[in-house]
Amino acid sequence: MSRFLNEELRNLEPYTPGEQPKVVGRLVKLNTNENPYGPSPKAAEALANADAGSLRLYPDPDGSDLVAAIAENCGVAPAEIMIGNGSDEILAFMFMAFGKRIWFPETSYGFYPVFNDVFGCEGHEIPLEEDLSVDIEKYKGVPGTVVIANPNAPTGLALSLGEIEELLQANSDTLVVIDEAYVDFGAETAAPLIKKYDNLMVIRTLSKSLGLAGLRVGWCMGCEDIISDMKRVKFSFNPYNVDRIALAVAAAGVRDTEYFEATRGRIMATRKRFIAAMEELGFTIPDSKTNFVFARSGRIAGADYFHELRKRNIIVRYFDKDPIRDYVRITMGTDEDMDLLLEATEEILKEAGK
Amino acid sequence: MSRFLNEELRNLEPYTPGEQPKVVGRLVKLNTNENPYGPSPKAAEALANADAGSLRLYPDPDGSDLVAAIAENCGVAPAEIMIGNGSDEILAFMFMAFGKRIWFPETSYGFYPVFNDVFGCEGHEIPLEEDLSVDIEKYKGVPGTVVIANPNAPTGLALSLGEIEELLQANSDTLVVIDEAYVDFGAETAAPLIKKYDNLMVIRTLSKSLGLAGLRVGWCMGCEDIISDMKRVKFSFNPYNVDRIALAVAAAGVRDTEYFEATRGRIMATRKRFIAAMEELGFTIPDSKTNFVFARSGRIAGADYFHELRKRNIIVRYFDKDPIRDYVRITMGTDEDMDLLLEATEEILKEAGK
Repeated sequence: MSRFLNEELRNLEPYTPGEQPKVVGRLVKLNTNENPYGPSPKAAEALANADAGSLRLYPDPDGSDLVAAIAENCGVAPAEIMIGNGSDEILAFMFMAFGKRIWFPETSYGFYPVFNDVFGCEGHEIPLEEDLSVDIEKYKGVPGTVVIANPNAPTGLALSLGEIEELLQANSDTLVVIDEAYVDFGAETAAPLIKKYDNLMVIRTLSKSLGLAGLRVGWCMGCEDIISDMKRVKFSFNPYNVDRIALAVAAAGVRDTEYFEATRGRIMATRKRFIAAMEELGFTIPDSKTNFVFARSGRIAGADYFHELRKRNIIVRYFDKDPIRDYVRITMGTDEDMDLLLEATEEILKEAGK
Repeated sequence: MSRFLNEELRNLEPYTPGEQPKVVGRLVKLNTNENPYGPSPKAAEALANADAGSLRLYPDPDGSDLVAAIAENCGVAPAEIMIGNGSDEILAFMFMAFGKRIWFPETSYGFYPVFNDVFGCEGHEIPLEEDLSVDIEKYKGVPGTVVIANPNAPTGLALSLGEIEELLQANSDTLVVIDEAYVDFGAETAAPLIKKYDNLMVIRTLSKSLGLAGLRVGWCMGCEDIISDMKRVKFSFNPYNVDRIALAVAAAGVRDTEYFEATRGRIMATRKRFIAAMEELGFTIPDSKTNFVFARSGRIAGADYFHELRKRNIIVRYFDKDPIRDYVRITMGTDEDMDLLLEATEEILKEAGK
């Protein structure tokens, strides 16, 4: 730490991303919810056609073509959309704009408390229920912004659209932010509610269901006033936050709905098969609506299971904190990846002599 | 504006970027200091070889390969470098980390006062001298961070390395940030002083001299403690801020020092020729060490000159504020671009009957 750092940031605990090994090689990497199928061939084509010469010019700070593609897909107007450098940046801008007093689940995306601290917000963390679900009643009527990941991470559990709408009605004088990073794997999006509620913001990413984690593009949707507030922050922070190549590749990816449907279908099918096999091995798994499952064995501690898998070149995610220290989070890879993990798991349980 | 926006941001005036027309076509675009020659063929090759499939994986949040390329070029250690999503993002992080009380020239990069406001810093703007230069004496001993663009924009004037070193010595208990966006066009970089002074941060961009404005990559250099503070902010805001394609293309661009030397040489030669021609037409131009010139005619008002050029499909930049409202800022394009501008200028002056 230098002598010059602002006092408020001296005790800040930055976010710890999942391990990103430089060479993936023969690793089975199931720790950061990446998509095993990668981006659409149309996105690959856009990348292949990208014109290096055009990189001399700044990108379109509004990303109008990408915004048009998203608008068509989500059934909202372009003025109800803002793009960003990944949904992390969108979340950071949201905390800057609306985070003064903010409520979120205690067990959720690990970045929420970090954003809270870095922007000096007054954060309120609400514990999950015993079954790891979010009880919407506990967020009704709070005097500030609510952020809920739906489906929630790392549990995988989703709220229904009816519950979200109840919350929007109960909190009509405050903002409700629904972080839908994983919504495409079986949950219901709140996007259609944007026309009806001016206190709703929905956040999305291309990193998961579109297989574009390496491209860094996310977006938010809300009524025009909310989006104009978000743009005020973006244009006061980094107007050219999405580069020319990313804009073109992302737009092509968003437009290929056929590939999107096919790959998310495959991932959900893998999940179904994998959950059944894990339950056979004695694991407990909350009902996942995401591209990962959150698994607890009654026979081996979460940390031990994590380390044993790591020894076998299989990386999953482990969170050493209550109430989830008995669980590991496992990204849905290809069927072959999951078979390797299942074999390793059988071996680990056998070696543990249980 | 929504009902929910934090009070502190309600009067915020976002940064106004220069016009970015969606189709450049037959425009002569000399308004945002882009490089007419574009990126190195090696950067183009890296783009052509980019693997779309790899986009399913998150990028390396440290950008180690790009950092290694920068380290070799600048003669600093990798731990003394942090990359970002353009130098605007680096500047934003710097204001967050060190900007509590901050001094900068009143006429300089228009984003400084915006960062100041968005992060609630106590900003002190020091007027330029009558000849538009920065008087280093006025920054000595101030009780907070100093940010100086060197060379300064939009004036084009540079401080010597001796002056920077004097400031570092006079302000040994506070941070001095030198924003070197334009340093490659004839000024001296302060990078070698990093080993000697632990109160120095140098900020750079690939947008200008490397012709990669569309790629969004910048970096900062400083002692390890300063860089570790900057990383603390980055990892609390957006760890994956530079995408996989940008990392690869940027590293290839940085490594092609031959192309870099050739193109910056051409731009400086164009500048010399252009300044002489403009002086023939009666313009006054401060000694530019950048890829733009700041020009004032004794015969036509700055705003009129700007509008007349715009009518002829030539875009330059005009700032409607004291003490620079008599000037326009003109980016150095190709020699052909500059000839078109010179012809138009002769015509405009003739029509004005002066």
